[in-house]
Amino acid sequence: MHLVVIGGSDAGISAALRARELDPSARVTVVVADGYPNFSICGIPYLISGEVAHWRNLAHRTSADLEATGMVLRLDTRATAIDVAGQRVSVIDAAGAQSWLDYDELVVGTGAVPVRPPIAGLDAVGPDDGVHLLHTMGDTFDLTRTLETRHPATALIVGAGYVGLEMAEGLTTRGIAVTQVEMLPEVLPTVDPDLGALVHTELVSHGVDVHTATTVTRIAATPDGPARLRVDGIGADGAELAWAVDLVLVVVGVRPDTDLLVAAGARTGPRGAVVVDETMATGMAHVWAAGDCVVTQHRLLGVTYLPLGTTAHKQGRVAGENALGGHARYAGSLGTQVVKVFDLVAARTGLREHEARAAGFTPVSSQASPDDHKAYYPGSRPITIQVTGDERTGLLLGAQLIGARGTETAKRVDTFATALFHAMTVEQISELDLSYTPPLGSPWDAVQIATQAWAREHPRATLVPGIAVGAS
Amino acid sequence: MHLVVIGGSDAGISAALRARELDPSARVTVVVADGYPNFSICGIPYLISGEVAHWRNLAHRTSADLEATGMVLRLDTRATAIDVAGQRVSVIDAAGAQSWLDYDELVVGTGAVPVRPPIAGLDAVGPDDGVHLLHTMGDTFDLTRTLETRHPATALIVGAGYVGLEMAEGLTTRGIAVTQVEMLPEVLPTVDPDLGALVHTELVSHGVDVHTATTVTRIAATPDGPARLRVDGIGADGAELAWAVDLVLVVVGVRPDTDLLVAAGARTGPRGAVVVDETMATGMAHVWAAGDCVVTQHRLLGVTYLPLGTTAHKQGRVAGENALGGHARYAGSLGTQVVKVFDLVAARTGLREHEARAAGFTPVSSQASPDDHKAYYPGSRPITIQVTGDERTGLLLGAQLIGARGTETAKRVDTFATALFHAMTVEQISELDLSYTPPLGSPWDAVQIATQAWAREHPRATLVPGIAVGAS
Repeated sequence: MHLVVIGGSDAGISAALRARELDPSARVTVVVADGYPNFSICGIPYLISGEVAHWRNLAHRTSADLEATGMVLRLDTRATAIDVAGQRVSVIDAAGAQSWLDYDELVVGTGAVPVRPPIAGLDAVGPDDGVHLLHTMGDTFDLTRTLETRHPATALIVGAGYVGLEMAEGLTTRGIAVTQVEMLPEVLPTVDPDLGALVHTELVSHGVDVHTATTVTRIAATPDGPARLRVDGIGADGAELAWAVDLVLVVVGVRPDTDLLVAAGARTGPRGAVVVDETMATGMAHVWAAGDCVVTQHRLLGVTYLPLGTTAHKQGRVAGENALGGHARYAGSLGTQVVKVFDLVAARTGLREHEARAAGFTPVSSQASPDDHKAYYPGSRPITIQVTGDERTGLLLGAQLIGARGTETAKRVDTFATALFHAMTVEQISELDLSYTPPLGSPWDAVQIATQAWAREHPRATLVPGIAVGAS
Repeated sequence: MHLVVIGGSDAGISAALRARELDPSARVTVVVADGYPNFSICGIPYLISGEVAHWRNLAHRTSADLEATGMVLRLDTRATAIDVAGQRVSVIDAAGAQSWLDYDELVVGTGAVPVRPPIAGLDAVGPDDGVHLLHTMGDTFDLTRTLETRHPATALIVGAGYVGLEMAEGLTTRGIAVTQVEMLPEVLPTVDPDLGALVHTELVSHGVDVHTATTVTRIAATPDGPARLRVDGIGADGAELAWAVDLVLVVVGVRPDTDLLVAAGARTGPRGAVVVDETMATGMAHVWAAGDCVVTQHRLLGVTYLPLGTTAHKQGRVAGENALGGHARYAGSLGTQVVKVFDLVAARTGLREHEARAAGFTPVSSQASPDDHKAYYPGSRPITIQVTGDERTGLLLGAQLIGARGTETAKRVDTFATALFHAMTVEQISELDLSYTPPLGSPWDAVQIATQAWAREHPRATLVPGIAVGAS
């Protein structure tokens, strides 16, 4: 039995680890395009900020750790073609030599590549000009070199999603004056605008110059100008804007890297991601795929595309198990996400109203701001919690939380995520036996205070015969 | 409709609030034995420590807040008898005047009283000697008076459960040298001894003199001695011990306060608590009961006694709804608990091995110490997590967690509690879509790393045909 895995990031390594864990007799070869298997892409902003001392620390496991499990790593090796019928992969090593690698089962985890937005001039500039995309360790080294050799004083970040926000913090921490430009009406567009506004305020309070509803239209190198780069844009009111900065980061999301699978005959679905079922089967014999290159089964939305490291780990594990003949099924995503922006934590799970409506639900929401712990104990702070539920069935559909660092906001969203996993109603959340001590919670946890607010504002039925619920 | 509630603590006030919320036309009268309705008993240690500036801050709601909901408070009024057939309660007011209060429905939440352990001399000493029990606001005022007028330099705490530990911290914070004596082999006996040992170390590192497996046998006032009190005990090795201290706190748990209900004909169950069903019905017509005076429906154990503020809130809410004609059911406890001891947080939910075994399960456990967040990001600290599952069925049975303050340990136990609520298997926990960002978590959350350790150590079945799981 020879399992070949293409991809050395979350999905590929998870598949290889699971296979070696389940069957120590299985031969497992992992083909890694660069020299950095099992690196934490999510950690890059903290390397840039200087909080992570050395890039090697970003490895979840070292190559030696991985090889100690019994897997074989083929580093700096690119897979260029899959011969499905012949059960072999064409690979090119660092020296440019091509060879064929036979497999009994194949797991493909090629991941995603950064989206290049349609900005005039973007193709004419690059790392040497101080213009960076950020996805691989190679991109990271490029950016580090720019930071260390050119000492930029100013930076402009295109995009205010997770990575954009983390990089705004990271560059600010390095002492660089940051301008952040987001095309959508508010930063962190994965949460509702009124919650994103809290993150916006946090950015501004740390000196970030934030421009929302603003589109970057052109980037040009200006070696003779006041700074190295000139960036043009159109602001919220249609006004023309221009910035002179030393550094530009373009971080506007990713798209699935599917060239290899598509050339082999794979089908694609939402956002062009490769279609797999819950077993991570591609439909091509002996070929499994997982992670950012494939579609995501979502427990509330069905098949969608939602690339997340947590999902890639789970899907990879399923693929590795099934490649060995197992019967694992990916249970599905809820889109649970969290980001720290300076001293604020923003989290979400499940659906927002417009997503739920598009999926056929009848969503209604309520917002509450319960304290993270009893107000009489020092240091309590409010967590803004937006609960979305189905007006017709009472089902919990989603939650968004914004709280200060230290309010256990990141793990409170997990209570919502676990409740969503089990299709609980909003009202049932009050039945959960959650922990309480005055320095860390309340007898009704903040989660329950928020769901009780929803239940009060959206009474569904008569609980007590003869009395209309919520008549007060 | 006149609802009378006896008891102004968690259960009683929750019942009254729920009734007023559901039916603003309902007359609701709450009979409160003292002048302190809706006070947070759990907050007393933080008043004693000085972290809560004023005792009034311990009120979840003020009397004015409560009355603004439309309920009537009868403060300093003791209920002395229930005339079930006549649907009336005998009450005595502060002036000693007796009267009858008619009701249509009655909710009783008389709570619990402190256990007085069989210590020689305990009945001969009291607050004036510097010997205190601690349960009511009255007890709190007594202790505050001792602290403020006698300025004790030394204190001995009998008991190292939740309140004992919180008081050890509180008195230490005030600058008092604390000796803590626990009869059982380790402090915090509600978790396994090896986890309790971590709390023990935390106490010692903050200067608390801890004696486990030690029984206090005698307390005597010694006004002419080196300190005001002499305490005798027998140590772990059978040695006779003696301490001279200025203050003694006896905090060894509570028992249900059932005199009123039992006299009215209520049945009692585990630990002498009044039997109620999931609707909080006592079986006596129009009489409901909730909180620390009644038995606890436990989702894994069936009927037991487990007095907790969180449970009292839930049971009270159910009682208030049903007293109005509703059909609410208490969904049951999982015994979820958390305590902060100096800079450590200890939490548990569900069953420990011996409890699970007694309940007919076949429990096995595993321990792991995953970091609270990615180690490359500064400040990561391990959380010790003990997972107990059923060897036969794979069902999650319980979890115990010990982590530093700031590791979101308190809300990570909630993920386990929510999983237990839904009778998940240990292996299914890996399917949960939990949040991740490097400063606050890992792609597999600490919760999942712990459950995966359990699954590896206790393989239950062949996942992959022909391959024995965990053969590695």
